[in-house]
Amino acid sequence: MKKFLNSAESFVADSLAGLAAAHPALRVQAEGPDGPFVARRAATQPGKVALVSGGGYGHEPLHGGFVGVGMLDAACPGEVFTSPVPGQILAAAQAVDGGAGVVFVVKNYTGDVLNFQMAAELAAEDTGVAVETVLVDDDVAVRDSTWTAGRRGTGATVFVEKIAGALAERGESLADVADMGRRVNANSRSFAVALTACTTPANGKPGFLLPEDEMEVGVGIHGEPGRSREKLASAREVAALALDAILAEPLFGAQGERQDGVEVIAMVSGLGATPLSELYILFHEASRLLAERDISIVRSLVGNYVTSLDMAGASFTLCRADDELLELWDAPVNTPALRWGL
Amino acid sequence: MKKFLNSAESFVADSLAGLAAAHPALRVQAEGPDGPFVARRAATQPGKVALVSGGGYGHEPLHGGFVGVGMLDAACPGEVFTSPVPGQILAAAQAVDGGAGVVFVVKNYTGDVLNFQMAAELAAEDTGVAVETVLVDDDVAVRDSTWTAGRRGTGATVFVEKIAGALAERGESLADVADMGRRVNANSRSFAVALTACTTPANGKPGFLLPEDEMEVGVGIHGEPGRSREKLASAREVAALALDAILAEPLFGAQGERQDGVEVIAMVSGLGATPLSELYILFHEASRLLAERDISIVRSLVGNYVTSLDMAGASFTLCRADDELLELWDAPVNTPALRWGL
Repeated sequence: MKKFLNSAESFVADSLAGLAAAHPALRVQAEGPDGPFVARRAATQPGKVALVSGGGYGHEPLHGGFVGVGMLDAACPGEVFTSPVPGQILAAAQAVDGGAGVVFVVKNYTGDVLNFQMAAELAAEDTGVAVETVLVDDDVAVRDSTWTAGRRGTGATVFVEKIAGALAERGESLADVADMGRRVNANSRSFAVALTACTTPANGKPGFLLPEDEMEVGVGIHGEPGRSREKLASAREVAALALDAILAEPLFGAQGERQDGVEVIAMVSGLGATPLSELYILFHEASRLLAERDISIVRSLVGNYVTSLDMAGASFTLCRADDELLELWDAPVNTPALRWGL
Repeated sequence: MKKFLNSAESFVADSLAGLAAAHPALRVQAEGPDGPFVARRAATQPGKVALVSGGGYGHEPLHGGFVGVGMLDAACPGEVFTSPVPGQILAAAQAVDGGAGVVFVVKNYTGDVLNFQMAAELAAEDTGVAVETVLVDDDVAVRDSTWTAGRRGTGATVFVEKIAGALAERGESLADVADMGRRVNANSRSFAVALTACTTPANGKPGFLLPEDEMEVGVGIHGEPGRSREKLASAREVAALALDAILAEPLFGAQGERQDGVEVIAMVSGLGATPLSELYILFHEASRLLAERDISIVRSLVGNYVTSLDMAGASFTLCRADDELLELWDAPVNTPALRWGL
């Protein structure tokens, strides 16, 4: 295994220590029996709804890199590819609650769903913290599997955190912030393609074997199987595969037809080991394909946003936009991984 | 070769098309016999010194990702790991000159040095564009090689472009902007470690072979040989190797002694295939080691800033800072890869 680490055991703690050292506006609450969380150093303003997300480590910058003004108030990292535990999530929620309640942003993955749900129940029983949950389930590749009931949650998490986070920053209510998160999720779809498997520090070996001339089409963010194993294809063909899967959703209009007036926020995210030069090639192909359908990309992200350790590959996410979503997208944000207007 | 591309021949053009599609504030001047350049869409303000950089493709986001308000006015990409040509550089300089002259920011690499020099001579002979050149030579690993006379240029380029770019934005003179660039370079040192070689699209195979239990210590940004081939070591040992090499420079004070009052801007940059989680681990170790020496990290960058295609590895860059440099560092910047205050 070729990785920069001290030990598999200290991988998450060492990495979080680096996140905190690099970003003085964040604090990592590392003590306590329940596991760490990343929070803004500044206390939540009274009356502001707080956003808390989390999940297994290995998807950086998700989620800790999205903590900051205009996005998350706290993020709960589990061990690598392992859900955070209820006590950890509850501690984060209590720490950042500003009295207006907390929205949990949860990727649809069975362990995450259960543990966030238990944290929400604990919050209701034991504390005065009101919780609403937004479940993110944007990955169209696979429905129902060993790991998840329904669709898996992936890239749309960034859109949900950004847009609902902007609404929370404006002082809107718990119900409104959560509804906005659900609306963004409902408007978003993703699809990913892997060229290589990733290696967890504890395992030391790739999670699956992908021959030198093959790719995994529709891969999950932990390397879960996709729809099919295919021969390597050109960037144009890869983008077409991914967008065909996404655009099959009625959300983006009738399949194969030109869509006058459909606007999207588009993300091409590397999965960890794919260089930016290649992500731009995929984005170029995606732009062309969408232009042929008269779907306009009105905002975009190209880079490493939702990753899978050292997997080579890329995910495509589209969010159907409207004026309200775009205004919230453009609102100021100041986090390690997304920053504008501040 | 597992890459997202359409063909080796179209790799750079397709990637630049994606950059332009993702960043409407940039334009890619792709036509003309001399090769493309990336420029701000807005014309250079009259009286503002323009900054132009460039080099072989494959180091993204360097340089095109640093074009924008507060940094570069234009970037000239060559083919992968191949210097841009003089006509291309001259065309970029002419396009962005605002009448106050142009600073060339050139990484010390023989082909780049010769071609930027020829472009400067052409500018002096054939055009009214005044040019000053800032040579970046921060890589302490190797002095004099097949590829470069003196030290190679690498990570400090980002610091030079940011800080000199901020001074240019303020309306300072050509001589002052160039002098500031030279001062930043003189204050900066870098060192990189590779875990794997990178593969150019044209070659299709790794540039060198690195056994599964070895790393290249002091690697160059095209995979040029470093100081030694070593057994894989812990993140702590890797950070120590790199910082020992950098701190051996008198610039940072007497070796081995505590340095009261020395402040640095620190960057840990991935080389393309190393995930952010590991870069944070390296940054954590670097922070500890510097703290032991009483050297303060006052600003930092952790992420992919100066890469080598799909190489797994990381570079460390320190710039000795002072109040003037920090004020310019903090000045607003709005580029694809660095953005704050705007």
